[in-house]
Amino acid sequence: MEKTENARWIWYPGDFEIRQGLLQNFSREERSYDWPAYWNMDDCHKNVKFKRYYTLEKATSFVVHAIGIGYVEVNGEKFPFGKKILCEPGKNKIRVFVGNTAGLPAAYIEGEIIKSDGGWSASNFVEELPAGSSTLYTDKEQDPNNVYFNTERVQAATVSSINGGVLIDYGRAVFGTLDIKKLALDKPITICYGESDAEALDIDMCYYKEENADANSTPRKRAFRYLFIPETTPEQVEIEAIHEFIPLKNQASFDSDNELMNRIWNISVETFTLCSGMFFLDGIKRDRWIWSGDAYQSYFINQYLFFDEDINTRTMLALRGQNEIKQHMNTIVDYSILWVIAVENYYMMTGNKEFLKQIYPKMKSMMDYLLAQTNELGFIYGREKDWIFIDWSEMDKEGTLAAEQILLLKAYNAMIVCGSVVGEDTSEYSAKYKQLERNLMTYFWDEEKGAFIDSYESGKRHVTRHANIFAVLFDFVDKLKAEKILQNVLLNEEITQITTPYFKFFEQDALCKLGQTDRVFNIICDYWGGMVQQDAVTFWEEYIPDEKGNAVYEMYGDPFGKSLCHAWGASPIYLLGRYFAGIRPTSPGYQTFSVEPKLECFSAIDCTFPIKGGSIRIKKEANTLVVCSTKEGGTMLLNGTDVVLKANMEYAFDLPKELVGNSY
Amino acid sequence: MEKTENARWIWYPGDFEIRQGLLQNFSREERSYDWPAYWNMDDCHKNVKFKRYYTLEKATSFVVHAIGIGYVEVNGEKFPFGKKILCEPGKNKIRVFVGNTAGLPAAYIEGEIIKSDGGWSASNFVEELPAGSSTLYTDKEQDPNNVYFNTERVQAATVSSINGGVLIDYGRAVFGTLDIKKLALDKPITICYGESDAEALDIDMCYYKEENADANSTPRKRAFRYLFIPETTPEQVEIEAIHEFIPLKNQASFDSDNELMNRIWNISVETFTLCSGMFFLDGIKRDRWIWSGDAYQSYFINQYLFFDEDINTRTMLALRGQNEIKQHMNTIVDYSILWVIAVENYYMMTGNKEFLKQIYPKMKSMMDYLLAQTNELGFIYGREKDWIFIDWSEMDKEGTLAAEQILLLKAYNAMIVCGSVVGEDTSEYSAKYKQLERNLMTYFWDEEKGAFIDSYESGKRHVTRHANIFAVLFDFVDKLKAEKILQNVLLNEEITQITTPYFKFFEQDALCKLGQTDRVFNIICDYWGGMVQQDAVTFWEEYIPDEKGNAVYEMYGDPFGKSLCHAWGASPIYLLGRYFAGIRPTSPGYQTFSVEPKLECFSAIDCTFPIKGGSIRIKKEANTLVVCSTKEGGTMLLNGTDVVLKANMEYAFDLPKELVGNSY
Repeated sequence: MEKTENARWIWYPGDFEIRQGLLQNFSREERSYDWPAYWNMDDCHKNVKFKRYYTLEKATSFVVHAIGIGYVEVNGEKFPFGKKILCEPGKNKIRVFVGNTAGLPAAYIEGEIIKSDGGWSASNFVEELPAGSSTLYTDKEQDPNNVYFNTERVQAATVSSINGGVLIDYGRAVFGTLDIKKLALDKPITICYGESDAEALDIDMCYYKEENADANSTPRKRAFRYLFIPETTPEQVEIEAIHEFIPLKNQASFDSDNELMNRIWNISVETFTLCSGMFFLDGIKRDRWIWSGDAYQSYFINQYLFFDEDINTRTMLALRGQNEIKQHMNTIVDYSILWVIAVENYYMMTGNKEFLKQIYPKMKSMMDYLLAQTNELGFIYGREKDWIFIDWSEMDKEGTLAAEQILLLKAYNAMIVCGSVVGEDTSEYSAKYKQLERNLMTYFWDEEKGAFIDSYESGKRHVTRHANIFAVLFDFVDKLKAEKILQNVLLNEEITQITTPYFKFFEQDALCKLGQTDRVFNIICDYWGGMVQQDAVTFWEEYIPDEKGNAVYEMYGDPFGKSLCHAWGASPIYLLGRYFAGIRPTSPGYQTFSVEPKLECFSAIDCTFPIKGGSIRIKKEANTLVVCSTKEGGTMLLNGTDVVLKANMEYAFDLPKELVGNSY
Repeated sequence: MEKTENARWIWYPGDFEIRQGLLQNFSREERSYDWPAYWNMDDCHKNVKFKRYYTLEKATSFVVHAIGIGYVEVNGEKFPFGKKILCEPGKNKIRVFVGNTAGLPAAYIEGEIIKSDGGWSASNFVEELPAGSSTLYTDKEQDPNNVYFNTERVQAATVSSINGGVLIDYGRAVFGTLDIKKLALDKPITICYGESDAEALDIDMCYYKEENADANSTPRKRAFRYLFIPETTPEQVEIEAIHEFIPLKNQASFDSDNELMNRIWNISVETFTLCSGMFFLDGIKRDRWIWSGDAYQSYFINQYLFFDEDINTRTMLALRGQNEIKQHMNTIVDYSILWVIAVENYYMMTGNKEFLKQIYPKMKSMMDYLLAQTNELGFIYGREKDWIFIDWSEMDKEGTLAAEQILLLKAYNAMIVCGSVVGEDTSEYSAKYKQLERNLMTYFWDEEKGAFIDSYESGKRHVTRHANIFAVLFDFVDKLKAEKILQNVLLNEEITQITTPYFKFFEQDALCKLGQTDRVFNIICDYWGGMVQQDAVTFWEEYIPDEKGNAVYEMYGDPFGKSLCHAWGASPIYLLGRYFAGIRPTSPGYQTFSVEPKLECFSAIDCTFPIKGGSIRIKKEANTLVVCSTKEGGTMLLNGTDVVLKANMEYAFDLPKELVGNSY
């Protein structure tokens, strides 16, 4: 929304993201059919009006390009698109009306003075707001209904004869299309795709198949590492893969004496890069949908890798949709709440008040939607058809649930923070916060168990990890209670283990927060290291150490149902940056921030992480720790003392013996 | 929604009409630019789910065709579209998921037993309702995103050389495209269109122009009677017009001894037929938009001409849009209210409870939207950006307005009637009705003036015709007050005359209702007869007797702004059927109906009008009136006596001398 001097495509704010989100959520494919998202999807507006006043000192001309039909109106007189329009000196009221029944209506206004830079308003004929735009669409030859990918040609790493056909291994995950360079056969071929060789070789059950392909075929965009072409020989066929991506700048680096951890880092970066494009996707083979829970974790990873603010806002706007809420995000109540919480995190990360102003009304309507399903105690409950997800884990779901209440409490907190920034009255949320906090502790905190119970209505006093993890993450428990949760829940083997990588993310986060970085270091080496040992080039949706052979590819009852490149698999990036490097903002947009490294597990490390408007480099060698921030505002916390970090100065610290550490 | 044995295209109910309505309202064109509607337009859902259970006695197969992407699910197993699917005996749950980012998602299911006839539900993932369909889309080769027009080739009636070019007169209004049969020129031509010769000949200001046309050009659909091709001679160019239309069956006939009235009838039929297609349009040259006020009057005309129930429901569904209301219909408060009232009229006309069930929730949400802008007296007021239209006429618009209150009162009545039919609790509306009725009479009825005043807040006690006309039409005044309104307002020359044909419709309606058919007969002969004298082939948007020459084509400050084929111009059809033939339903769907002819103005007449499931023919010759209804349930009211009409029996009545009449 920043004002710039250059023209760009403009649209009704949020509409680009909503439209592209629709296209994204309709791109899922499975075994010869398409699988559009199974929830109510919004679309962009179909007619919009752009407006701006210019007070001209001299006559000037401009041309309006539009995606759609309509006209330009200058001081009440109408003109067609694509024609030069002369504007006389003095005050000029310019309006551009665009309708598009097939997609996003957008305008690009070209001129010396009159042009579509910042300052235009957009109206849906009900609300008038600052027009939306994107740094990805600044060229008048573009159409914001299309996505312009960069491409990279990928050659086969190995080509082998097997099962009477040809197996091509590209040696890496590709998300793109194919270029059939050679086809010395007199009939079309079938191309079977696989994230694994097992999948590609399974002609019947592989996820994607291009049938009747010939040299002119351009298959749709798919994710794969392997291709298998039955009934061919390596001499007959040559196929290049064309990887498609939206470039995102990796602003972090990581190099340590621990080779396994370095590989985990690199594979995490590869995984996350593949799953990040116009939006944060869950995975590239399956589902390619924008899930609010998955995206929530991606926002955190992004903060320590790309620090790309736009992909966050695009994803949040796409998820939220139009003003009117018909259903919870992805049908899941907790995903709606996580969306609200994510906005506060985005604000802490970026300090972007403009976006907060744009999104706050939609946060408010989301809260209204949530509040409509709270009871007299302030507890949120599920309605018919609502999916109270939390996790796939078994949980006592009778009546209202502790985990949902803790999320809601955090959402109130987000509303208070964000509302205050944009100057809105947040007293309603403060009152609700107090009521909910009180009742949460009264009804769900079990002093005897020293933990939150799932449900108080059932009388079972069943404890799972989830609510307790959220309470730690969102700082809703004091030190004493946090310690109890650590001992009674997180380190208690009798409490059912977290089995999904989705919730493992939150669990590691909480463990680190409670000072268990050593333990988490081991978990990373074991769990992610386990995938590395299995030749993973990207991290998986789920890893179960006991699974062997092709069983590892099975999920949701489908032999190749598991996604082998899944965004949440990249969580080590976040954990390493947030807790091991120990970097976090202490005021919005890293105006102030703290650096509190916990690097005992590494003998030597050299890593850099982005922050808003800068980066921080941390080097550890033998008993010396060197820290340098390119931005003012940092405080180094080490060994109980604070050191203010001036910009671009290297600070070297001698490490006491117990912090020198020992690489594994 | 009727269950039939034949398959047809199915969609989420209302979506077809909303999508086609969007396309319709974006089809306006003016002087080389498009003019999409300037209000917030809804679009159809982009993903839907169809569902049905079949208990099969034997195995059967089916194929799903879809407009969009997706899959078929049979008992949880997924299949692609377009492939034969075998279903085993026993209970089968079949779901069809269709997504379409470019338009209406729809499905056509082909099979002996399993097929898309009645009985499928459609879900937008929030609500599940009986699937929508249309008798216009029963062929699997169709796409309900397209409109399939019948065409009729129209030859030039006259071709003449004028102004250095060729003027073609087709002798009738055409709404369609062109076929350039001959073009003996070495350069492309410009084709200027006109509803009048003056417009076509005005190269600069004609509404439509096809520039750079050659023999292969197929211009877009436009309305015209004349074409002018500058810089050509009749030998060089030959153009056929191709009229496009959706066939509607004229079920009425009219023949009288009054030749002028016969011509007025025929031109009315031509006018209304041209303005009726997928929806009721205001006019064919301009705006081609679906206006709720214009449509309201078309519903009444339709009842006495086509008796086409589907065009009514298509128009009402398109106007209403999706559940969420963001704005008044066409931005006009009274147009929203008229929409509610129209549903009741539709129910009286058709007795269609199925449609009432479908539409009632949308009536209710419309009422909620209206109720949110009523004050403590129950009076509705305009909000910022609301357009309180009523009419272009001058009116005291300070504070709340009488005319709007009377419309709202009628809307409560419609809710009570329709709600009761579908078994909903309407006590809220009954209470509001009572309050509003009481306050309307207290605040707006001026006993001294014997009329409703526009506004009571201004203290001016200004009287216009509008509120008084509505009060008569909706039976909100007793006989005494009605007589006062007739004398003090309708027949009072000092009360500002109605100047718009839109409101003239309501005024004639009220005058007839108050027994003034003689007067209305003269008005028809004068006003419509005036247009006939000016060589009108269709009736105009407005006729001002004093206007001469090309000034008649001017409107809204545009020299050719007036639409010369405008639906409301066809109101004589309604007036003749409703009051002169005197036919009206007295219970829903003409289960009972009355025939009360007022034919004194005709010496001889032979006319037929449709009713639900039948028709009524009335013949008058000399002093005999013969009436025959093809349907049971009628009562003839003549000269103060009632006669029950048995089906298909001719009843002859001797007319007393004063009813024999005298043709003009």
